[in-house]
Formats: sequence, structure tokens, C-alpha cells
Amino acid sequence: MRIVVLTGGVGGAKFLRGVRAYARERGGEVTAVVNVGDDTVMHGLRICPDLDSVMYTLGGGADAERGWGRQNETWTVSEELKAYGAEPSWFGLGDRDIATHLVRSTMLGAGYPLSAVTEALCARWSPGVRLLPATDDRLETHVVVDSEEGQRALHFQEWWVRHRGQLPARRFVFVGAESASPGPGVLEALAAADVVLVAPSNPVVSIAPVLAVPGLREAVVSGSAPVVGISPIIGGAPVRGMADRCLAALDVECSAAGVAGLYGGRGAGGLLDGWLVDDADAGVVATGLLVREAPLWMTDDAATTAIVRTAMELAGAVAR
Amino acid sequence: MRIVVLTGGVGGAKFLRGVRAYARERGGEVTAVVNVGDDTVMHGLRICPDLDSVMYTLGGGADAERGWGRQNETWTVSEELKAYGAEPSWFGLGDRDIATHLVRSTMLGAGYPLSAVTEALCARWSPGVRLLPATDDRLETHVVVDSEEGQRALHFQEWWVRHRGQLPARRFVFVGAESASPGPGVLEALAAADVVLVAPSNPVVSIAPVLAVPGLREAVVSGSAPVVGISPIIGGAPVRGMADRCLAALDVECSAAGVAGLYGGRGAGGLLDGWLVDDADAGVVATGLLVREAPLWMTDDAATTAIVRTAMELAGAVAR
Repeated sequence: MRIVVLTGGVGGAKFLRGVRAYARERGGEVTAVVNVGDDTVMHGLRICPDLDSVMYTLGGGADAERGWGRQNETWTVSEELKAYGAEPSWFGLGDRDIATHLVRSTMLGAGYPLSAVTEALCARWSPGVRLLPATDDRLETHVVVDSEEGQRALHFQEWWVRHRGQLPARRFVFVGAESASPGPGVLEALAAADVVLVAPSNPVVSIAPVLAVPGLREAVVSGSAPVVGISPIIGGAPVRGMADRCLAALDVECSAAGVAGLYGGRGAGGLLDGWLVDDADAGVVATGLLVREAPLWMTDDAATTAIVRTAMELAGAVAR
Repeated sequence: MRIVVLTGGVGGAKFLRGVRAYARERGGEVTAVVNVGDDTVMHGLRICPDLDSVMYTLGGGADAERGWGRQNETWTVSEELKAYGAEPSWFGLGDRDIATHLVRSTMLGAGYPLSAVTEALCARWSPGVRLLPATDDRLETHVVVDSEEGQRALHFQEWWVRHRGQLPARRFVFVGAESASPGPGVLEALAAADVVLVAPSNPVVSIAPVLAVPGLREAVVSGSAPVVGISPIIGGAPVRGMADRCLAALDVECSAAGVAGLYGGRGAGGLLDGWLVDDADAGVVATGLLVREAPLWMTDDAATTAIVRTAMELAGAVAR
């Protein structure tokens, strides 16, 4: 049983713990194709928030309460950077986290691609899931917002962290996407997949940039594996994060139905064969895909594994 | 009263506190021309041990007991780097210190020369002394040692920190020196100097690389200012560090007289007009320069300022 998961950071990382547990019960293999659109360079360090969230979470090094970064984190370097007046000062970099970025930046500087760097970092964390960057090429999510001088674009992190998503977004641009290629192993994993799961990540800024890599969406849609998505919206609100603000920019309703419409049913030229929504969203219908309901709150690993089990059953039901 | 000090790191930094105190009493200006031969790149960070030692020491941020790096230092990043198996693991980088290196590396990466970066970093520390890198160009001290396969060269830091100076050094090579230029302001400061002091730093690996920058030694020797050196050797032993091992490589006796001979009297084609030795070394004679004795232990700022006062009196005595 080979499962490929398209995923963003925090929520996707939590979901992957359930996928890993499910696969371990059955001797299956899990490959995560991870969003790199949030990646950025701060203080000369290459930062990959989603890859790190997944790596730390699966490796047992994540801070569960804060939701991102390392547990037992300290902030000495960031305080010192502020004392120098170094910008950006709005992006918190923990000391433990910085070590990851130093290793990554050094390896990238030495010419290794991000996929090789990720594999090297994972040698320490043993995540039990193969982590593949969606692409080794530059693909950066920028956000177009209104300003007094008309529209301007800023990096996703600036919009998300510095402005807390408060600047009304007009649209999202995946800079570099058109000339990016899928990372090594991504197309092969999709071709060999028995099931493709779309994690309950932000559809607009986590999953969309993965699918924006030329050839990647086509590989999912044209593949033989059933594609099942798990709704990141429960009862009209995002489980976590600011998907509501992102969906609003696209004029998509913040609901399980709205996101289903955004992804589209595979039977109608879209992405998904199956769509798993929360019990609270029972009754959602969407064209060209099969909807099933289940409790979707990932309250602990057991609950998350139960979600995955239902998603896999749905995959079985829609398999062709 | 314009005083220029040629200096290395820790010992020179301590000495500069005395020079600064002396200059403050008289409304004088101090410029330190600092060795960059120890500089290196570790984990992608540009590290300038001597510039930082001087900056931290004069700025009140140095760890006086350890003798290098920041006070109240923590080591979280280094521990994490070790957990990744990242090399080099033998070079301790404190968390506070890393912030300095991040700011420096980012600015260098953006195209600023080291001198401009140093000025920017000093804006935080207000060292009260103008810090000028001897050169903005690459100048790295390498050490030639014997090995089973014949001689090999290693970076000074590897010899000094990793091997604790235990590998017998054959010679020291200042890689890049021949094509280096004095840093901005260095020649101007020397031309305008009323006195040039040679700090009690390691003559072989701290002062020699400064003087190895083409044009720098000539500017000192041909200038109108008297040149007075302070012996880093007291009673046949280095006040601090491993000058004995360095001098041995050059077949120079580890003594105040040996170092005087290495620098040479300006009256005999060498560097110095005056040479200040410790009372314990009374009776040292050297060709072409004037020797004076005084207590040279820099036990506190008052003692160090007294040393500077004597050095300045000696400068007055040898002024032409």
C-alpha cells in the first residue's frame, strides 16, 4: 500500500501522523509531497516552514502547543538580531530552529538541491515518512494586496506573519511556478501510488502551490490512484490558520462545499474522487466526486488515524 | 592626539581598553587596525574572531573569564548542529555570537565590504575606538604542518582550535595577502597618526598578517609617527595564548628579546622605534630601537592604562 499525501505545514503534519500510524498497521509506505511556497530567506537563512513542520512533527521535535517550530525552544539569537536592529524583526527564529536553517543553507550553498538537503536533515529525525519538496526550484507564494498606491505584492510570510493576514488579499501568485519542475521522486511516487490523499491543509496557499508545479497536477489527475481530500473547513471555519482570508480572496465560500468546488470533482475535470467532510457538514454535495462524513477534529493521534482510515475506505469506494 | 593600534583579538582588545581610557583623558582619537587572518566561514557564517573580540570587549559585551565571545552566552544552536552531525563540530559558536555572524554574513552577501559591516555592527556596541579591518580582501592565515604524507596546510582556526596548536607548525602562510589592499581608512589613519602602537598580540599570527597587507607595513615604517610595541612575552612565556608555539615555528626565541628581534628596530630597517618590556625582562637590548621596562600585566583597566601611559612616554622619547 503506497500512499502519497499532498500537504502543507502544521495541519498537514498532524494529519501525516495519522497516515503514518495507518500505514504502519498495514506495512504501507507514505510519501509526503510538501509545499515550498512559504519558503523564504531571512538573515541569509533558507527557511522552509512546511517541510520543517512536517519533519519536526513526525520526528517528535515539534512544539505541539505553539503549533510550529521546536519544542523547548529558546530565542537568544532573535533577541540579539533585534538588538542589532536587523530586519526582518517580525519573524521569530528559534535557536534550535536556526541550526536546521544553518545546515540547510550551508548545503544549498554547496550546491545540493533542496530534496537532498531534506533527506539529509531527515536522517536525524527519522520521520517514518518520505518527505519530498514539491519542487527543488524557486516557487514563492506572493500575495497581491491593495495599497494606497494601487496593488502591490508581498511575500506570503510578510502577509501572513507580519500583517497576520489582515491586509485584504486580492490574489495569490506562485512566483517561479511556471518554470519549476517536480522535485526528484515526486512524479515517480505519484505514478506508483495506490492512493493520493490531499491533507486538510490550506487549499489556497498550501495545496495550490504544490499543484502549480507544471506536471504535478496532471500526474495526480491522470494517475490510476484514487484521490481523496480531507476538508480543512469544519462548520464554516478553518480548523486552524487563516484559510477563510485566503478563500475570500478567491471569492470562494469558507465551507466544506466551497473548498470541494475549488478542488473540483475528478469526474468533472477536477482533482478529487472523494471528499471527506466533518459530521457538522453532512449534506454537502459536489459535482463529480463522492462525499463522506466523519468526525474530522484531529484531537489526538488516535482520532487522526481514524480519519485516515475513513479516508482510505472512501478511496476504496471510489477506486476505478 | 591620534593613536593607531595594530592589534589582534583578545589580548589586543584588553590593551585597547587602556588606550581608550588614556585617549579619553586627553581627548584623543583611537583607531584600531585589526587582524583578519583568523577569519573563516563556519556553517556558512563569516566569523571574524579578532574584530569581534575587540568589539565585544570595548562594547562591554565580552566574556571576561572565558576570554572570547559574549558574556551570558548560551550554546543551543551549536548543540543542535552537533545533533545533525554538522561539521566542523570543534568550533564553538555561541547563540549571541551567531547573531553577529548572521548580520555580518547577510551584509557581506548583500555586497557590503567588511569595513562597512564592521561599522554597522559597531553602531550597536559603541566601542569608542574606530575599528578598521586590516583589509576588506580575503587574507587567511594557514599553517603548514608535517603529516605522514609530507607537509600540509590547514586554516589557522583548525590548527589553533581543533588541534590546540599541538601539531608542530613549520610556517605560516597568509593566503591572499599579496593581492590584498589596506582597508578603507587604514592608510589615512596611519598617515595622520601621532603615535602607532603595536599591541601585545601574537606577533606571528596577529600582527604579522596585518603587516602582510601590501602597503601597510610601508605606511607604518615610512610614516612620521613613532612606533612603539608592547611585548606579549613576559619572562619567557606568552601572557596568553600560544605565541610560544608560533615563535618556535619561526625559530624565534620565546622572549621579549626574541620578539624585538622579529619586529626589528626601525633604525635598522625594522618596524619599531620603542619596545616596552616587563620589569621581569629588564636588560633586553635590541638593535635600532629603544627599550623601556614597566609592569606589563594587564590585571585591570587601571594597570592597562598605566602601561599605555608608559608606552606613550616612550613614544615621546623616540619621536623624531
